[in-house]
Amino acid sequence: MSLQFEIAAESAGAGRSAHLTLPHGVVQTPVFMPVGTAATVKAVPQDVLERLNAEIILANTYHLYLRPGHELIRRAGGLHRFMSWERPMLTDSGGFQVFSLAKLRKISDDGVEFQSHLDGSKHFFSPEHSMEVQIALGADVMMAFDECVETPASWERTKNSMALTHAWAGRSKKYWEEHRHEVPWAREFEDKHQALFGIVQGGMYADLRKESAERLVEMDFPGYAIGGLAVGEPREVTREMIALTLEHLPKDRPRYVMGVGYPDEIEEYAKMGVDMMDCVLPTRAGRHGLLFVREDPNDRTSPVVRMNIKKLEYAEDHGPIDAGCGCMVCARYSRAYLRHLFASGEPLGATLNSIHNLSFYLETMERVRGELASV
Amino acid sequence: MSLQFEIAAESAGAGRSAHLTLPHGVVQTPVFMPVGTAATVKAVPQDVLERLNAEIILANTYHLYLRPGHELIRRAGGLHRFMSWERPMLTDSGGFQVFSLAKLRKISDDGVEFQSHLDGSKHFFSPEHSMEVQIALGADVMMAFDECVETPASWERTKNSMALTHAWAGRSKKYWEEHRHEVPWAREFEDKHQALFGIVQGGMYADLRKESAERLVEMDFPGYAIGGLAVGEPREVTREMIALTLEHLPKDRPRYVMGVGYPDEIEEYAKMGVDMMDCVLPTRAGRHGLLFVREDPNDRTSPVVRMNIKKLEYAEDHGPIDAGCGCMVCARYSRAYLRHLFASGEPLGATLNSIHNLSFYLETMERVRGELASV
Repeated sequence: MSLQFEIAAESAGAGRSAHLTLPHGVVQTPVFMPVGTAATVKAVPQDVLERLNAEIILANTYHLYLRPGHELIRRAGGLHRFMSWERPMLTDSGGFQVFSLAKLRKISDDGVEFQSHLDGSKHFFSPEHSMEVQIALGADVMMAFDECVETPASWERTKNSMALTHAWAGRSKKYWEEHRHEVPWAREFEDKHQALFGIVQGGMYADLRKESAERLVEMDFPGYAIGGLAVGEPREVTREMIALTLEHLPKDRPRYVMGVGYPDEIEEYAKMGVDMMDCVLPTRAGRHGLLFVREDPNDRTSPVVRMNIKKLEYAEDHGPIDAGCGCMVCARYSRAYLRHLFASGEPLGATLNSIHNLSFYLETMERVRGELASV
Repeated sequence: MSLQFEIAAESAGAGRSAHLTLPHGVVQTPVFMPVGTAATVKAVPQDVLERLNAEIILANTYHLYLRPGHELIRRAGGLHRFMSWERPMLTDSGGFQVFSLAKLRKISDDGVEFQSHLDGSKHFFSPEHSMEVQIALGADVMMAFDECVETPASWERTKNSMALTHAWAGRSKKYWEEHRHEVPWAREFEDKHQALFGIVQGGMYADLRKESAERLVEMDFPGYAIGGLAVGEPREVTREMIALTLEHLPKDRPRYVMGVGYPDEIEEYAKMGVDMMDCVLPTRAGRHGLLFVREDPNDRTSPVVRMNIKKLEYAEDHGPIDAGCGCMVCARYSRAYLRHLFASGEPLGATLNSIHNLSFYLETMERVRGELASV
């Protein structure tokens, strides 16, 4: 058993609330997954993530492969034990980072040769190797290795890339089926193993998205992701691509849109039937002093506003970031104090800002789950 | 009432355990005070300090005067409210930072003109102004404004500087007596006000230390500090200066040695009769990957060892920093994980290392208090 997905309620708009059971626990969906790139959600301690009710977090295969290395993490008993996070976890395939961070890439049918962004050392990722690394890391959900095209890309270029992604998806699945018993926690969880999600590509072309979804569904993955979005295209296009791809994905499997988005977007996509999302935005924005709040603090469905805590107008504002927010930061600290921390370059500023933003995202999803469950 | 100091037990070696009652609460002494320079103990959230049982923290007047400004903090209701710290607090006079951080100082009998280390802007600190700033900040304990001589300094130079410090101590006390009712929390704590400590100077000269202590005791302060130590002199000299100064300070008042030290030093000084100490070392060392541990984790009185978490030997060490330490970091995270965080430049590393080191210091003082109480 890799996962169980039980839909509890479904809305007219196709949004659904569900229980996703994974080896390390149950996740209530739709869910937002905080990003813990290098085995840490930047500047936020694990016990705070637990208090925020983060039920699943993401880690980046590319980063952990380079540092500290997947074999080290395997010997540590896997990522859960290494970073002391006993709840569910998901790793990406490393594909996106190879294409966005690494240097001097050389792509062949076999895989990708690239240079580390850290020290320029040469490495090679194939579908098999990505699976090997992800099995060593031992997240509850792992992702098939995919190629990500640049944006914009021609139909032809996108189709060829998609075909490569499909071939790699097949090889990823084969390796996973043959090696999934090698996960570091195989003995502890005897009857359980990691789940593998296939990734739909196809750029901004409706026909290719449909083809990609159909091709992957034929391969029969435990779950499906929609990749290659939020890479610079207009927001309406992102939405359109998600909507049309969802139509071609089975309703009884979890559906994950990678790397999105703003708080109002994750709400919108959840209501369209997306079950899982992740984004660095809450933590990255927090480190830059950008805080998400509701326009009307007393109405948690009112528009999202982005507050720039650097602004002079907050220097003597002794109210909380967001008076309607129930997070530990809003309960204790003022805008004036957070502005001072940011202006002084104090590390506590990044921590508190990130905690508030994560809470804002998680609270938004909690409300959406409630709305979906009550329809 | 500014403070009450009740000695609970005294050892043959002159060390004592006591209860220091301040407007914002009771502090068990001997106590180590974490340093919160800019209204934040670097990288450590306030609720963690509370969980570590930090009963009093220090903040730096010079830094807060420059940013965000003492008038802003006064309008916020004082430092306690500004930074959300309801327990006791102490501010230094700004003297040490003016002499160590600021540029282009010009000293007169009246005070010190200096340039901000942040933007080069010109400022003037006199005893009266330091008091005014510290009353606006509203810490439970404030310090008289003193001159700090360079090290080494001649007897003559040190004596002249000391004389200035004594004149400034008198002016500090006068201002405090006339203005202490202006503290931002005056109304909340009607019968209470801030305490002012005098600072003994005298460099590394026994006769001057004696003279300085006697002169300040004549002025009758609620507490006394020993300043101008741990500025580069050999450790034996620090110890000698503390020992001989303590002899000339009244036993019924709290005695504070400023800016010390290593964990074994704070233990030694506490057992000599020092009641209060502060130092940036636990947090600064933590940010640099240096962790304090006991040589024998099962014997908390065994020698202190400084562990450099950067070292390769910890890369696959899955044990805690210090197996005998009861802190939340040792309970949850491994050396291997902390090394990874440090090597990756992850902000969580600075936070967790600082928490462990602070816990190590506070735990050391707790044990010393227990030893002193049981003799």
